[in-house]
Amino acid sequence: GALGGLGLALGLWRRQAALAAAREDEEEKELRQRFMAPPVSGLRELRRRRRELRSRMELLIMETQAEVCRALAALDPGASFSVDSWERKEGGGGISCVLQDGEVFEKAGVNVSVVSGLLSEEAARQMRSRGKSLKAKDGKLPFCAMGVSSVIHPKNPHVPTMHFNYRYFEIEEADGTKQWWFGGGTDLTPTYLNEEDAVHFHKTLKEACDKHDLKLYPKYKKWCDDYFYIKHRGERRGIGGIFFDDMDSPSKEEVFQFVKSCAKAVVPCYIPIVKKHCHDSFTPEEKLWQQLRRGRYVEFNLLYDRGTKFGLLTPGSRIESILMSLPLTARWEYMHNPPESSKEAEILEVLRNPKDWVH
Amino acid sequence: GALGGLGLALGLWRRQAALAAAREDEEEKELRQRFMAPPVSGLRELRRRRRELRSRMELLIMETQAEVCRALAALDPGASFSVDSWERKEGGGGISCVLQDGEVFEKAGVNVSVVSGLLSEEAARQMRSRGKSLKAKDGKLPFCAMGVSSVIHPKNPHVPTMHFNYRYFEIEEADGTKQWWFGGGTDLTPTYLNEEDAVHFHKTLKEACDKHDLKLYPKYKKWCDDYFYIKHRGERRGIGGIFFDDMDSPSKEEVFQFVKSCAKAVVPCYIPIVKKHCHDSFTPEEKLWQQLRRGRYVEFNLLYDRGTKFGLLTPGSRIESILMSLPLTARWEYMHNPPESSKEAEILEVLRNPKDWVH
Repeated sequence: GALGGLGLALGLWRRQAALAAAREDEEEKELRQRFMAPPVSGLRELRRRRRELRSRMELLIMETQAEVCRALAALDPGASFSVDSWERKEGGGGISCVLQDGEVFEKAGVNVSVVSGLLSEEAARQMRSRGKSLKAKDGKLPFCAMGVSSVIHPKNPHVPTMHFNYRYFEIEEADGTKQWWFGGGTDLTPTYLNEEDAVHFHKTLKEACDKHDLKLYPKYKKWCDDYFYIKHRGERRGIGGIFFDDMDSPSKEEVFQFVKSCAKAVVPCYIPIVKKHCHDSFTPEEKLWQQLRRGRYVEFNLLYDRGTKFGLLTPGSRIESILMSLPLTARWEYMHNPPESSKEAEILEVLRNPKDWVH
Repeated sequence: GALGGLGLALGLWRRQAALAAAREDEEEKELRQRFMAPPVSGLRELRRRRRELRSRMELLIMETQAEVCRALAALDPGASFSVDSWERKEGGGGISCVLQDGEVFEKAGVNVSVVSGLLSEEAARQMRSRGKSLKAKDGKLPFCAMGVSSVIHPKNPHVPTMHFNYRYFEIEEADGTKQWWFGGGTDLTPTYLNEEDAVHFHKTLKEACDKHDLKLYPKYKKWCDDYFYIKHRGERRGIGGIFFDDMDSPSKEEVFQFVKSCAKAVVPCYIPIVKKHCHDSFTPEEKLWQQLRRGRYVEFNLLYDRGTKFGLLTPGSRIESILMSLPLTARWEYMHNPPESSKEAEILEVLRNPKDWVH
């Protein structure tokens, strides 16, 4: 009786354990199919610490990468993403997905990186200059940084370039306390202005922000216009979107939910614009103007972009993934000035004096 | 008798004065024809202070500009230089000569600038970091900077890109003493390695240096390899040449004579290479490799070049003339790695490990 009961209980327990294991295997299989590659931290490790924010953020950036890549690939059936998983010997690694020379996209890169180690002197100096007090232990600052970042350069000059980046940072100070913050943004760089597209793009971002706090969109819209400024040209890189950094309030959970809303808004704010214009006809002159604007994109990214600088300064960083943001082709003409009231002058006007697209 | 003698003497004096004036007019006319545009300081002013080094240097850079432009134009008969004289409201100005989209040259720019005013905080900081002690008067440092600088990007991938720059700097310190120095260099950036060309280029520069001091070529050849280093790529921009800065000994006159020899060597070190290869046939793959190398050129110039940085930092500087150095077109491909023992791998090897071309 008692032994029989024990046997029965044991059998039941075994069956439940087997079911749980099967469920976990199923879940792992599903995630493996959903993601572009196995996550840097490993699925098992991510499941073990599933309640920690850094695990949830890593899953979010992996999901965002896969979502965006799939949406882009669906529009460019002939092309496919090359997927590279790479490791960083100082700690961590990443997954770079790049589609190059497709029918619709000239170059589309979506990169995930999950990096940890000790902050370089130069990187710490830059963060302190932004007002962070980082108390180092024996000059060492252990950090963990992760993010998804992407630049999409389409072929057709009537389809704008889009960039987004969402990232999470943790630094351990001398006394063991952890500083953390989120940063990110999504912005659009059209070759020609299409007001309807500009409104759709900003409206979609505004809706994502408004769910959390009505103050966020106006603040981050302005920050975006200020950040993507090519000082020596007196022009912004594009027509903006949202940009934020050092976001650490009201709470870790709430900021994470906000970042999640922004990440989920990437596909709906951009993909409809690609679909709408990817079969538009264009002239050689329009293609030329696109190439000149690509040149400005390069100028911003190499001269001003904080992410590119941080990347190039981080020892052991993967150059190919950092410079993935550069267009396939670009052009610089001496003294190119579009004629007054041309379509080229129209976009320049907006780049010089940013507009409010939604109220 | 006496009056008649006086009249004769007066007549003689008048005739001599008229002759002198005619000679000066002739000289002015000749210079005007020889130069691409009237010099920034004006011919009359330059003649007035003809013994001062800054006047002789201004004439040298004007002459070099004209010499190089004529030599290039002779090789590209269909194209012509556009010549822009510009003024800087803070003091001085320049003359930019650009040939764009020719048969032989994709973009060739030769720029003269003669700029004066007060040194910006940032520029002073950079100079101090190079070891200069600049004692300012009420925080103000009057300076005068002049130079000729040029980048030639040919169309044919078998014709290398060439860059040169010769410049003179004067700064007035608080106690009225003037610090002065010369800087400059000439360097070659081939798409494919041609040893014969490399030897000719370096040999011509070495001969120019050797006339002054046998130590100069080896020292400035190494400085060139060190300066044009694209750190994040582990590659040099090209196969070098010479580069020097802060040169202020043995004497103003001797350094000027050295700089003059270098400037005179530009045409003989480069033009024969252009002539030799400008009709070489090339494949689309070779053109593609050239475009990727152009991308590296852009990376160096925007991320590392001191001249570009100084230019972008100088208030009121002429952006179009500074960024004239960028190629007409450039390309960035994700993860482009040429196959082993290809011609592309051959040049990369030399860019990673600079060679001595002459002994």
